[in-house]
Amino acid sequence: MGNAPIGHTRWAIADGYIPAWSHGPEPEMTSHEGLCILNAGDRDVEVRITLYFTDREPAGPYMVRVGARRTNHVRMNLLKDPEPVPLGTPYSSVVEADGPVVVQLTRLDSRQAENALLTTIAFAG
Amino acid sequence: MGNAPIGHTRWAIADGYIPAWSHGPEPEMTSHEGLCILNAGDRDVEVRITLYFTDREPAGPYMVRVGARRTNHVRMNLLKDPEPVPLGTPYSSVVEADGPVVVQLTRLDSRQAENALLTTIAFAG
Amino acid sequence: MGNAPIGHTRWAIADGYIPAWSHGPEPEMTSHEGLCILNAGDRDVEVRITLYFTDREPAGPYMVRVGARRTNHVRMNLLKDPEPVPLGTPYSSVVEADGPVVVQLTRLDSRQAENALLTTIAFAG
Amino acid sequence: MGNAPIGHTRWAIADGYIPAWSHGPEPEMTSHEGLCILNAGDRDVEVRITLYFTDREPAGPYMVRVGARRTNHVRMNLLKDPEPVPLGTPYSSVVEADGPVVVQLTRLDSRQAENALLTTIAFAG
Repeated sequence: MGNAPIGHTRWAIADGYIPAWSHGPEPEMTSHEGLCILNAGDRDVEVRITLYFTDREPAGPYMVRVGARRTNHVRMNLLKDPEPVPLGTPYSSVVEADGPVVVQLTRLDSRQAENALLTTIAFAG
Repeated sequence: MGNAPIGHTRWAIADGYIPAWSHGPEPEMTSHEGLCILNAGDRDVEVRITLYFTDREPAGPYMVRVGARRTNHVRMNLLKDPEPVPLGTPYSSVVEADGPVVVQLTRLDSRQAENALLTTIAFAG
Repeated sequence: MGNAPIGHTRWAIADGYIPAWSHGPEPEMTSHEGLCILNAGDRDVEVRITLYFTDREPAGPYMVRVGARRTNHVRMNLLKDPEPVPLGTPYSSVVEADGPVVVQLTRLDSRQAENALLTTIAFAG
Repeated sequence: MGNAPIGHTRWAIADGYIPAWSHGPEPEMTSHEGLCILNAGDRDVEVRITLYFTDREPAGPYMVRVGARRTNHVRMNLLKDPEPVPLGTPYSSVVEADGPVVVQLTRLDSRQAENALLTTIAFAG
């Protein structure tokens, strides 16, 4: 690529929800959300994730680094700092990066015997 | 964020459909659609939802408030005013807000024993 | 709405596929794709759908009308003119309208005992 | 279409993952990802796919041709040159074409007895 790396520096996802229980072998089938961040550029990118809730002030920022020419599929249920992401609780995310990235959210829901999946490219704005 | 809050003031979702029956424990596994609205800004936002159908005039507006720095995952099957959203009926939604928001639709379909999920960021236009 | 109706006049969906078999009660659980078209404007819209395949020339146009302030969830497996859409065959769609519409594709796959769903807003270009 | 063919020449998908095992009849129910590429234009298009990983340098380019007025639903698990796509491994994709195309990713996950699906139009940037 001779031109600028693909992406945008601010993204939002309105629907976040980590199901509170799971069926099937861990860790593949544990209910989770993956916030997937691609950095196709040639320098490392620092990412700030802020979480919004229904009835309290936002949590964060959660700081994540994505190396040059790397992807980081952040498991939201593993974030601990500054606080864990509550299970079974509706939330939204805003992702801000100091370089262009591409963001997508995927959820695996294994609350019932068979898993269900959803995904969407985030909103770039 | 020093710049304007992320989002857009008009959104549309072409596919709406609340499955007419469900399996599994309520309320988590009740078939439903969630219209997820993020307001990452510093003032409350008033939202108007209009529903479009196959063979009748639109319903609405349904008025919803989303507080500053809050998210509202609106369960479409709980909307009652000016009229309930019919089950098992194709519809579409237009969302208009007096400030920038981000909109995403998610459906949980538990008509069969295991649930299925879909989601998409709405169209900003 | 005092301003122009929401939408765009040309859309594309790269992944089309109608699963060739089904489980469960008809018609709700029949495997199908729904091409959902919202016309939030105040005049009827004429829509042309063209289908692209792996190894043959395109099919169409399929002509569909969407009334003013109406939605049309077109079941792709019911289109017959100029030819039926083949089952179990990868395809893509281009949707062209003579007024602004919003387009989304949803698939219900009931080839196994429990159904799976996918959806995405189409690409507006 | 009197105007330019629909699409864009650079696309990205942040979430790639080919599940490492499957249930059900092959090839329909084999876990896979389909990278669907529509070329609605009147000349053939050459496509370069580059894959990004968590902890190694990118793989590729994988070269794919999409004929004029054709679609190509590339099964990622069948790509072999320059190297196979690893199973059960998070990755991201960048798609670059020498003409306008539309790109969408779909995953079928049949690791459990019933399949799950996800899809999203890629990010055009």
